[in-house]
Amino acid sequence: MTLRSEIGEQPDVFRRVLDINTEPLAAVAAQLRAADFNYALIAARGTSDNAARYAKYLWAAHNGIPIALAAPSLFTSYNSPPNLDGALVVGISQSGESPDLVEVVAEGRRQGRPTLAITNEPDSPLAAQADMVININAGEELAVAATKTYTAQLLAVAMLSAALDSSETGAELHNIPGYVESVLVIEDHIADVAADFADVRACAVLGRGYNHSTAYEWALKVQEVTYVLAHPYSTADFRHGPIAVVEPGFPLLAIAPDGPLFDDMLELLTNVTKERHSRSIAISNRSEALEVARYGIPIANMPEWVSPIPSIVAAQLFTYHLGTIKGLDTDQPRGLSKVTKTI
Amino acid sequence: MTLRSEIGEQPDVFRRVLDINTEPLAAVAAQLRAADFNYALIAARGTSDNAARYAKYLWAAHNGIPIALAAPSLFTSYNSPPNLDGALVVGISQSGESPDLVEVVAEGRRQGRPTLAITNEPDSPLAAQADMVININAGEELAVAATKTYTAQLLAVAMLSAALDSSETGAELHNIPGYVESVLVIEDHIADVAADFADVRACAVLGRGYNHSTAYEWALKVQEVTYVLAHPYSTADFRHGPIAVVEPGFPLLAIAPDGPLFDDMLELLTNVTKERHSRSIAISNRSEALEVARYGIPIANMPEWVSPIPSIVAAQLFTYHLGTIKGLDTDQPRGLSKVTKTI
Repeated sequence: MTLRSEIGEQPDVFRRVLDINTEPLAAVAAQLRAADFNYALIAARGTSDNAARYAKYLWAAHNGIPIALAAPSLFTSYNSPPNLDGALVVGISQSGESPDLVEVVAEGRRQGRPTLAITNEPDSPLAAQADMVININAGEELAVAATKTYTAQLLAVAMLSAALDSSETGAELHNIPGYVESVLVIEDHIADVAADFADVRACAVLGRGYNHSTAYEWALKVQEVTYVLAHPYSTADFRHGPIAVVEPGFPLLAIAPDGPLFDDMLELLTNVTKERHSRSIAISNRSEALEVARYGIPIANMPEWVSPIPSIVAAQLFTYHLGTIKGLDTDQPRGLSKVTKTI
Repeated sequence: MTLRSEIGEQPDVFRRVLDINTEPLAAVAAQLRAADFNYALIAARGTSDNAARYAKYLWAAHNGIPIALAAPSLFTSYNSPPNLDGALVVGISQSGESPDLVEVVAEGRRQGRPTLAITNEPDSPLAAQADMVININAGEELAVAATKTYTAQLLAVAMLSAALDSSETGAELHNIPGYVESVLVIEDHIADVAADFADVRACAVLGRGYNHSTAYEWALKVQEVTYVLAHPYSTADFRHGPIAVVEPGFPLLAIAPDGPLFDDMLELLTNVTKERHSRSIAISNRSEALEVARYGIPIANMPEWVSPIPSIVAAQLFTYHLGTIKGLDTDQPRGLSKVTKTI
């Protein structure tokens, strides 16, 4: 039950992080304002790579910073790091231990670039290579599948964006613990939805924009915890080919919050549900999506850019209950360890 | 049989392109050398996005250029394009028609950045927005699933890299038609392998480095043409969680050429095949991989950076035969059209 208790801890984690991390992040933001860069190169793997996908949208849309996701093997196995002129080099890793990510940040330092580590372990090898370190302060995580460390990474990404921004986005961050509590309250409903997917062997997960990250992270959690093959897509990429796989009963999980991309998602949800008879789920705060999907999971009204945090908590609960219904050890999935070191 | 004949045309397409495109690409390379940029932002969708993944490794490793893959919705739906200082803005699209990709390149032009279009349609809206245009010259493609336009994009990416590079990589390009012919020669063997996968509903595709692109493109072809759910992974990302889904008999398709990442791939192939009893396929020029996998598809010895072209041709043949064995219309998959326009 460690996984379930770590999912439930998240509102308290967010309140603590909002309290203790505001000042350190203002200091990092001041250093970044003084630094000279025109894009950010982010190195990350697994769950942390999904936090990088969130930064790719949020830092670009709110702060004007283009994001490149690094190919770590260029820095390690191929020993051909690119010229990093103009880059802010960022490593995101809960453990801060994976040698390939450490090497990307170390190469940034060797090339004289500003470097930033976002990690739950401020004494890690990754942090040691970075000029600036953000401790996500999620506390110790015991379940192998990351939950509170992922959302604490998203919160760190959002708090840094707000600290760099002169507008009032920062105030919205304080509503996040409440948004997440309103997801935890409907756990029984989410467990009922999960029970109807106990037979599933494969599914697709759809999200776009800020929730491209959520689609990837939901798919990763489903694979880690329930051994169901799950493939994440943006709705645009899904239309460019993979939509062909949708047969009657095919499970399709969607994150469909209000925002400029909602109409596009609603059209796709309607197509796959009504015409192709997909077994669809929508996590949404728009009644049209909750009604058109075979199953609706409601979230509160909120600006789209914060919706990835409560949305993934709903997805974590879905995944935990699906694993439990299948009789699996949700705390220790087969073949995985808490810290994965790749080169 | 249009799909099959377009697969078979590829050696002739490559010989023609190597002949007629060398001079125009030298001219583009000269313009790029004079341009001021420190990274490339590439906008692409579907198959063309997989060509962008190839550029991400090749242009970085051979030319030192870091690559960011664009999030087109930032430029369209969110109307929040980032600051593109320092960027070369590149659009890759066979048709050159998708409005989101056109908008990314148009925004690059508005911000005064150098812009490049790589397309099969030099009179397209995408090409009209770019300072520099590379016509991939694949000729008209009639099957909905892209084959020769994909490999012609890879060849354009590789020819541009060679033209920018002072070393002798360009000579190797002329061996590609022969490498591909040696794949076409073993079509019967590939068809036999495909026949053993006629029952499959879902699979994973593994590739890393230069062949990260091939894993994504093989997975996309399998989904488009055979309606099998296929998920591409780098071996590193696969270890960070998804490896948990591998059960006995699970189909795992791997591209495992000789190179610095081979030992890592061989270790993973051995693990999933011998310990987890995966039904594995390896496309490789190393006997260890061909022997350890349940099925081996041999390719010629060649430098790793050219291996994505013959490897994807082997994957195209596998996919075509799998679709044919399943009795599907491989030329016109359900729910897809040749030109997909997304916003």
